[in-house]
Amino acid sequence: MQSGQIRLNKVTREWVIYAPSRRKRPQDFQQSHRPKQSLITRDTKCPFCPGNEHISEFIVLEIPNQNHDGWQTRILSNKFPALTPNENTRRWIDGIYLAMPGYGQHEVIVESPNHNDDIATMPIEAVEMVIETYHKRYIELMAWHENMMGIIFRNHGAKAGASLIHPHSQFIVTGIVPQHIRWQEQEAQQYYDHWGRCVYCDILEFEMQNRRRVVGENLSFLAYIPFAAEVPFEIWIMPKDHQADFGSISDRQKSDFAAILKEVLGKLYEKLNDPDYNYVINTAARYKAEEPQVHWYCQIQPKLITEAGFEMGSGININPSIPEADADFLNE
Amino acid sequence: MQSGQIRLNKVTREWVIYAPSRRKRPQDFQQSHRPKQSLITRDTKCPFCPGNEHISEFIVLEIPNQNHDGWQTRILSNKFPALTPNENTRRWIDGIYLAMPGYGQHEVIVESPNHNDDIATMPIEAVEMVIETYHKRYIELMAWHENMMGIIFRNHGAKAGASLIHPHSQFIVTGIVPQHIRWQEQEAQQYYDHWGRCVYCDILEFEMQNRRRVVGENLSFLAYIPFAAEVPFEIWIMPKDHQADFGSISDRQKSDFAAILKEVLGKLYEKLNDPDYNYVINTAARYKAEEPQVHWYCQIQPKLITEAGFEMGSGININPSIPEADADFLNE
Repeated sequence: MQSGQIRLNKVTREWVIYAPSRRKRPQDFQQSHRPKQSLITRDTKCPFCPGNEHISEFIVLEIPNQNHDGWQTRILSNKFPALTPNENTRRWIDGIYLAMPGYGQHEVIVESPNHNDDIATMPIEAVEMVIETYHKRYIELMAWHENMMGIIFRNHGAKAGASLIHPHSQFIVTGIVPQHIRWQEQEAQQYYDHWGRCVYCDILEFEMQNRRRVVGENLSFLAYIPFAAEVPFEIWIMPKDHQADFGSISDRQKSDFAAILKEVLGKLYEKLNDPDYNYVINTAARYKAEEPQVHWYCQIQPKLITEAGFEMGSGININPSIPEADADFLNE
Repeated sequence: MQSGQIRLNKVTREWVIYAPSRRKRPQDFQQSHRPKQSLITRDTKCPFCPGNEHISEFIVLEIPNQNHDGWQTRILSNKFPALTPNENTRRWIDGIYLAMPGYGQHEVIVESPNHNDDIATMPIEAVEMVIETYHKRYIELMAWHENMMGIIFRNHGAKAGASLIHPHSQFIVTGIVPQHIRWQEQEAQQYYDHWGRCVYCDILEFEMQNRRRVVGENLSFLAYIPFAAEVPFEIWIMPKDHQADFGSISDRQKSDFAAILKEVLGKLYEKLNDPDYNYVINTAARYKAEEPQVHWYCQIQPKLITEAGFEMGSGININPSIPEADADFLNE
């Protein structure tokens, strides 16, 4: 494919530009080294390392390790929370504007006692405990009727906004459903009303047959690079069976999710030398948790390019890499 | 204001979180130095410097300087265009997806012959020529019936995605209207259908009276930090009279726009030590150029914080700085 191409994301209905003159080969995105390999197991200054509880925050939840002689994962209250539960959700008028208190929850999921661990390189049992921890806390917090959205995300590396190296994810719960989510839901609803099917299920079925962009698969999940990936090596992990809410995953799905997450992050780690990335679990807002057109998925975006003024003004991404070439490179 | 606050952007209807525990003072965003001050006027390796035409691209347009012994601004075809006009806009089906050729135009606006110039520090006459060049080319390219959107933007500094130091902006024209723009138009239309007024005009009127967030003003324009600014020191410059299309600005407005742009970029330069930033001129899509609910504006976003997984999943920004404090700091 020599000429340029613009592709429509079937879910968000945003366009993405693939520019032949800017096109890079997948190996051009390889990082020069894997910095974590030189790290120590315990860091006396790290607030997430065992023994440093005096500098860490309140322990919300702890899951013991297999030997029951310590913890495997922990949830801590965030030292610098974006939102706090000591507020209400009553909105007010400020001049001609609308505002509300900073109600919500913001917690840190410490994924391992080891400072130099990472999901890509941990034993699978340890990754399973991370997913178990996500799910346990998700169920607990989404039981509160004020909590409208639960966003579990992971920032890996400085370019992805991580300020601490110790492996961790974050969980933010809000008392609002943002427009960004409503718009996507509206697109999915229109698709459902037109075709009688979930757009995500249709994409899954097509990608499983077509296989051009698949980068991982097991009994419960498919991992693929979206047809209109916004950035090089973007990956979506999606449950094969229709499921709107991350909260409803079964035990079997939990271990399959852990396996495929480790598999695709492992591919990024091996092939691109541990790039910085963000991932987020996009799941149904509270009041949509049973809807036939909403489908949860984990979205991974490596931080390999810089978004600039054009993206800000248009919402269109310029991706210098082709999804099919990225998939081939990861599968080599 | 000690407790947290969430504010709604009246235009996009997206929420922004202001987190007290993460709150920074405006001076915390000051950069350590102003790197451009040490630069030379001509760089023999820069494709935008005079005398280097053999390494630059095709010259699309040139505006002479006041002495008529050289050029003041130039438009060059982009060496690595995201889109090219040698395509059509016919869409095709690819499996279950939609795609189209990479039709569009991508040009570079060289803002000065001097390598070390910058809008914040140039003479006002030179900034006026930049705006004149924007406008001239905007009118030319938007006369083509295939061209649906014209996006003029500026990336300043490496964090904002600029790969060359020589002062320049870019102009990308697309044959599509992205969903991002359609959604904003739809919000504005709903407001107009509800209140009978342009939402941007209502904001202008309020900000001009309230004055808490105003950072610049002249006869034709108001510059202010939005009530729900997404990032620290975000600034919107808006024509005071209702005007949907950047293409319809008058000569008077052009010089007033140049003056206020230089003024507010000068404040960022002085108070924050030349931070990296993006700006974009958000203007009406072709078929909306006369609509009573669309209002063009220039949006400036300094690159002082890193967006991460939460922003990606929710579309909600976490802003560690309060708009009113940012405005006070710039006006000090």
